[in-house]
Amino acid sequence: MKHVYLDNAATTQIRDEVINEMTNIMKNNYGNPSSSHSFGRSSKSIIEKYRKRIASYLNVSASEIVFTSGGTEANNLILRSAVRDLGVTHIITSKIEHHAVLHTIEQLDKEYIMSVSYVDIEPNGDIDYLHLETLLKTESKTLVSLMHINNEIGNVLDLKRVVTLCKTNEAFFHTDTVQSVGHYKLDLQDIQVDFLAASAHKFHGPKGVGFAFVRKNSGLKPLIFGGEQERGLRAGTESIHNIVGIAEAMDMAYRNLDEESAYISNLKQYFIDKISNDIPKVTFNGNSGNIKKSTYTLINVCLPVNPSKAAMFLFQLDLKGIACSKGSACQSGSSQNSHVLAEILNDEQLQKPSVRFSFSIYNTKADIDYVIGVLKELI
Amino acid sequence: MKHVYLDNAATTQIRDEVINEMTNIMKNNYGNPSSSHSFGRSSKSIIEKYRKRIASYLNVSASEIVFTSGGTEANNLILRSAVRDLGVTHIITSKIEHHAVLHTIEQLDKEYIMSVSYVDIEPNGDIDYLHLETLLKTESKTLVSLMHINNEIGNVLDLKRVVTLCKTNEAFFHTDTVQSVGHYKLDLQDIQVDFLAASAHKFHGPKGVGFAFVRKNSGLKPLIFGGEQERGLRAGTESIHNIVGIAEAMDMAYRNLDEESAYISNLKQYFIDKISNDIPKVTFNGNSGNIKKSTYTLINVCLPVNPSKAAMFLFQLDLKGIACSKGSACQSGSSQNSHVLAEILNDEQLQKPSVRFSFSIYNTKADIDYVIGVLKELI
Repeated sequence: MKHVYLDNAATTQIRDEVINEMTNIMKNNYGNPSSSHSFGRSSKSIIEKYRKRIASYLNVSASEIVFTSGGTEANNLILRSAVRDLGVTHIITSKIEHHAVLHTIEQLDKEYIMSVSYVDIEPNGDIDYLHLETLLKTESKTLVSLMHINNEIGNVLDLKRVVTLCKTNEAFFHTDTVQSVGHYKLDLQDIQVDFLAASAHKFHGPKGVGFAFVRKNSGLKPLIFGGEQERGLRAGTESIHNIVGIAEAMDMAYRNLDEESAYISNLKQYFIDKISNDIPKVTFNGNSGNIKKSTYTLINVCLPVNPSKAAMFLFQLDLKGIACSKGSACQSGSSQNSHVLAEILNDEQLQKPSVRFSFSIYNTKADIDYVIGVLKELI
Repeated sequence: MKHVYLDNAATTQIRDEVINEMTNIMKNNYGNPSSSHSFGRSSKSIIEKYRKRIASYLNVSASEIVFTSGGTEANNLILRSAVRDLGVTHIITSKIEHHAVLHTIEQLDKEYIMSVSYVDIEPNGDIDYLHLETLLKTESKTLVSLMHINNEIGNVLDLKRVVTLCKTNEAFFHTDTVQSVGHYKLDLQDIQVDFLAASAHKFHGPKGVGFAFVRKNSGLKPLIFGGEQERGLRAGTESIHNIVGIAEAMDMAYRNLDEESAYISNLKQYFIDKISNDIPKVTFNGNSGNIKKSTYTLINVCLPVNPSKAAMFLFQLDLKGIACSKGSACQSGSSQNSHVLAEILNDEQLQKPSVRFSFSIYNTKADIDYVIGVLKELI
């Protein structure tokens, strides 16, 4: 059977070069980076070399990169310490964030005396910047947590505008950039966020590694306590091969960014044109149908399917060998609708199947032809 | 230059078979285990297959194994949730635990209204079981956290005795088994601990993965919030290759345990005999010189060296290509003495260099001959 993987926002295939580098490190560098002998120093120098490489792509200092076990841990580290150690008593976020942010904030709200405000979402999935400005007018020490690129509908946050609003109102700004690091250039001298979270497996790196960017002198403290790894910000023996993997994946992503993003944008535009032509009643959720206002990596379509058939729709695509999703992978097992689409679609729209297709360099136009052929057949 | 790696308690060389299996998984199984399509289900089934394998070696249910990014995270998960969610207001531990436990408890003590008691340590490095019994006579909801095998001096805790004491006094029992899982058989139906923490890189698996054993219906809640991975106990996309790595390493460790532990025990006895003969004034810290009362994997020697030469001693061993340590790797960069030895040695002994040598299947008698030759030369 044909297999077409169009769920690259959930996770991506690891590049062969990344696997080779990781395998090489596992074979040859097993010293504990905290050991003072030659085996340890060798591992330590590898980590610091790769940390510098990552920092250079973000235009930050290497000491501002804290390796974690992934984007979720990085988000948890930042959010928890902001409340516990930085005096934050008010978090502004939105209801269309990833659960790694939403559920963490809900948990903090149970544990600490604090308040949470949700910024309004426009029908197109953008945040209401004026409402954000209003919410920022408060006496409370505030942290804003808004993702750069929405993982379900692809809307792009105006980071600089939010930075300015936060600076004006003396609020911290944390952004989940799990869908943008490795896909977009981010110069953090230009975009003065305080904290961000990234994850390797969204840009052809290994699963189980990510990093937090933590701006110097922020006062952030650990989520995981123990040894003095990561300058005291994250205890636990470093996963050297995974760190090498994320750095190598990032290196390849940014060295080839112009070419690869053009290739993927082209695929997305092809998808939009073809589905609009073949299935005229299709609608695009959020900004995802507008390639200028959404990430080039994904599209989210609401399909003209009878509600009675909607429940089995993804299952039928799977039977045809097509991997896509109705929302984030983290909730795909559940029967619940996407919490993101629930914020922007009406009841009638929510009864139809919405499907996210997300692209990578490993996809081709033939993949898209196949998918749209199957969609036509099913509809 | 000759290189001899005798710091296997800090970390171990990954077995080739483990690397091969990990590489294979990275190449062929990149689906997100939370995705409902075939790519995702394939990854999910791999994780569950390997989870079962790990559970079988501990004689527990697969649902009681929670994968983490390592032993430190597993310790943090258990300790934090015990205080936050299980109503623990009193922790009994010892001053010779690993920093992953000690520093986590210190942090919890700052955050919560609770008390911490430290059980007395005997001059040989064993805990004072009678004192533990006394400390357990309290009205407070108590958790005992004591490591199975001390990472510096190799003393072995009588787990069953502590289980009985804890059960009698209705206390939870958590044990850091980072130095014993993969080296000793542990039947957790027989040894009824509530929680334990393990780490792959201590038994020839990859760095950056471990697990918590969490006994069913314990009520433990996450350290890291977000998606519903690990039955809701640990959010974040699973590091499939690392999970396969820990399971494969555990499998190989236990399948070859009798043979390999005999080989390593033999090396340790050879070390003891040879150093006692060649450097008669050597003493052994803790129980480590007694192969029946300490782990077969390490030895900790106090060397008859003039205090003026002590500071540079490890450095000189490193120059000769010998990798060993003065304590846990996590503190090896610091100039402080080992917090473990500080509890059991007197001032005069603390001025002499103490060195931990820890063994694996990759060591030979020739390694030990070389090391003891160098030690003689330096002393």
